Amino acid sequence: MSEDHQLHRVVIIGGGFGGLFAARELGNSGYDVTLLDKRNFHTFQPLLYQVASGMLTPGDVCVPHRVAMRRYKNVKTVMGAAYDIDPDTRVVTHQYGELPYDTLIVATGVKHDYFGHDDWQDHAPGLKTVEHALRMRRKIFYAFEMAEQESDPVARERWLTFVVVGAGPTGVELAGAIGELANRTMPGDFRRIDPRNARILLVEGADRILPGYPEALSREAEKMLGQLGVTVRTRTLVEDIEDGLVTMKGDQQQQSNVPTETILWAAGVRASAFAETLAKRTRTPREKGGRLRGQPDLSLQGHPEIFVIGDLADITDARGVIVPGLAPAAIQQGEYVAGLLKKRLKARAGKPFVYKDKGSMAVIGRNRAVGDLGWARVAGFWAWLLWIGVHIWSLIGNERRSRVMLQWMWKYFSHRTGDRLITGRPPSTRRLKDQESRKRAA
Amino acid sequence: MSEDHQLHRVVIIGGGFGGLFAARELGNSGYDVTLLDKRNFHTFQPLLYQVASGMLTPGDVCVPHRVAMRRYKNVKTVMGAAYDIDPDTRVVTHQYGELPYDTLIVATGVKHDYFGHDDWQDHAPGLKTVEHALRMRRKIFYAFEMAEQESDPVARERWLTFVVVGAGPTGVELAGAIGELANRTMPGDFRRIDPRNARILLVEGADRILPGYPEALSREAEKMLGQLGVTVRTRTLVEDIEDGLVTMKGDQQQQSNVPTETILWAAGVRASAFAETLAKRTRTPREKGGRLRGQPDLSLQGHPEIFVIGDLADITDARGVIVPGLAPAAIQQGEYVAGLLKKRLKARAGKPFVYKDKGSMAVIGRNRAVGDLGWARVAGFWAWLLWIGVHIWSLIGNERRSRVMLQWMWKYFSHRTGDRLITGRPPSTRRLKDQESRKRAA
Repeated sequence: MSEDHQLHRVVIIGGGFGGLFAARELGNSGYDVTLLDKRNFHTFQPLLYQVASGMLTPGDVCVPHRVAMRRYKNVKTVMGAAYDIDPDTRVVTHQYGELPYDTLIVATGVKHDYFGHDDWQDHAPGLKTVEHALRMRRKIFYAFEMAEQESDPVARERWLTFVVVGAGPTGVELAGAIGELANRTMPGDFRRIDPRNARILLVEGADRILPGYPEALSREAEKMLGQLGVTVRTRTLVEDIEDGLVTMKGDQQQQSNVPTETILWAAGVRASAFAETLAKRTRTPREKGGRLRGQPDLSLQGHPEIFVIGDLADITDARGVIVPGLAPAAIQQGEYVAGLLKKRLKARAGKPFVYKDKGSMAVIGRNRAVGDLGWARVAGFWAWLLWIGVHIWSLIGNERRSRVMLQWMWKYFSHRTGDRLITGRPPSTRRLKDQESRKRAA
Repeated sequence: MSEDHQLHRVVIIGGGFGGLFAARELGNSGYDVTLLDKRNFHTFQPLLYQVASGMLTPGDVCVPHRVAMRRYKNVKTVMGAAYDIDPDTRVVTHQYGELPYDTLIVATGVKHDYFGHDDWQDHAPGLKTVEHALRMRRKIFYAFEMAEQESDPVARERWLTFVVVGAGPTGVELAGAIGELANRTMPGDFRRIDPRNARILLVEGADRILPGYPEALSREAEKMLGQLGVTVRTRTLVEDIEDGLVTMKGDQQQQSNVPTETILWAAGVRASAFAETLAKRTRTPREKGGRLRGQPDLSLQGHPEIFVIGDLADITDARGVIVPGLAPAAIQQGEYVAGLLKKRLKARAGKPFVYKDKGSMAVIGRNRAVGDLGWARVAGFWAWLLWIGVHIWSLIGNERRSRVMLQWMWKYFSHRTGDRLITGRPPSTRRLKDQESRKRAA
């Protein structure tokens, strides 16, 4: 791909937060940069739950890589899934060709982990890609449509039961968004059912929701979720998921079955498939969740030319802090590695990576949030305003992104409801089978 | 479904322009109305070409039926595909159940017609649904991505060749949008190819594009398309479409092959599958394109309780005008039938249907249009402004729609480019096969 063989070639695999910000930071530098991604766009993952609940549309939370990289003439964008690497000849093989590199930055992120039950993903979609979000959207709105038509009260209740597995920020935000839909947005739209009767269960194995947050915020978040009709069930593990039924077990070993047509997965994650290949080829042992241990400068041991950043990297920073799997951490790592490379161009040495914890926030429903800023804890409407402010602040200087942000706010305030679309294939045909068997029984 | 058995039950099948406006006009009337549609939303079909070219997003051109019908408490919305009807017992059967009716309005529209070559649709997607538009979008942007990576000049040219079949308004608008993309929006985004080298062919069997328009406007439109890099080939029929190749024949019987990865279908249409069932059950003969002949009051002969409206109806109005398959005609028919029914409630007789021709327009590229208003012909930038004005005017009084219109305009003027997303399954794996065979040959 590279025509400028005299330049040092940097290949970045993955265009999430880590890869995108590394590429931007290397934009118009003395490097020949290639951003390789299986998609042609960056996804603003923290807002995918709003696509799943019909608040935003995919175009609102995705930016084509070519548009983001337009100004950086030294950055090439290549669409293709990476599937192999040869660290000796320094070549990455992807779906459509090969890319030689001098320096490699791997930022391929994580995928969902169903704890060894891969068959569960057919019934319980996760939320890592735009397609996942559209699948969730389809399932959620299809359930309400089917409930409206259903005359059998047992089946209707099954359609009106929503189970969200995992109460980290994604699970909490998703359950809150469904609560908002059912209790605030949709009443009045139906003639036979009342969407406010929907039962929304948020299931968590730990003893409280948002286990990574201070306890007081977990309690606040649970209260806010309660106001949106969400029932929280902690110390509860999912034992089995099948079509129309989820089986759970509490910490007293008591089992419970919840008949439901809509199970949404927000529980575990695991390093991407490419991480496995990279580990094998570089003989790097894999840590918890299949992640790869990075050195203090984020390179792999024995491979100073290969860096791992973002969710797939297992990093303890120079101060001994374990770096969390959050967007700001990935951004910092991407910018750090790019800065290190730019220093090398000037023959200057770099310092080891230090993570700056800017805190974390979770939005609950339309206009509430909880946030742990380290030096302060916030909850409620003001926390939500802060969330908006923080995002706008971090977007300043970037015309396109601030424009998108304005659009989010506009949609947010206007209760825009136009994206409640059931697109693609219908999510389930089981209801048809039910009807047939009922007819046969009659 | 109907709980109000004392009320006269009107079932409307299909939520396109005809069905939607019939339902709205019957909103809060003395009828018990059910709108049955296989989708949960209305699609603003005339703008689907903008979704296909990444200008708008599906949420911009779709409105959930429940949202549109929210205020009309006598209107129920049922999601499900109609597949049978019994005119004796007056029952419609759909995917998920049955709907008894007293009056039936059928507005199921048209689908694409591949002139007996149904296998062509795998290679040449049409543009009737949001999924079609997303499939086109995927194909168009994927082609540019593959061209950027391709080192073989022959294969690269195949990726950069776009063939649009059919030069009615949809084909003209689609070809213009691709020309706009290649020549105005995307240059600067690529590093190896120049999108301006894309070859865009618009193929038409008649002797000019926009055959339904006055000749002078066809010439104007062809000139505008030329400025956007679109080559028009008239008096040319498609003989065969296969993966990577389209074969055409001119009126002098000269054959030509165009190697291309992207063939888009904007040619024939044919009445929906339900029209066939309805024809069989009511013993109505089928007219050109499988359409059903309606009486002067749009009912079927011998069935004063069944009305046909919109594209699936073959109507010659009271003045002898053949009603065209356009959105304004469908709206007029929907409102006419609803008005007729409301008069019947008051025991008043109705007049036969008269079509009011408000003219037709086609947009070419970002800010040009041609329009035939009957009393005047317009072309260029002013025609485009008129197009915008007409749409806003027709949307007045409807808060939600005007809001959507404002958004369209905002996006239109801001050159918003965020929706150039390749989502869903990759459109083709042939390139991979090519590579493998090349490797094997080497």
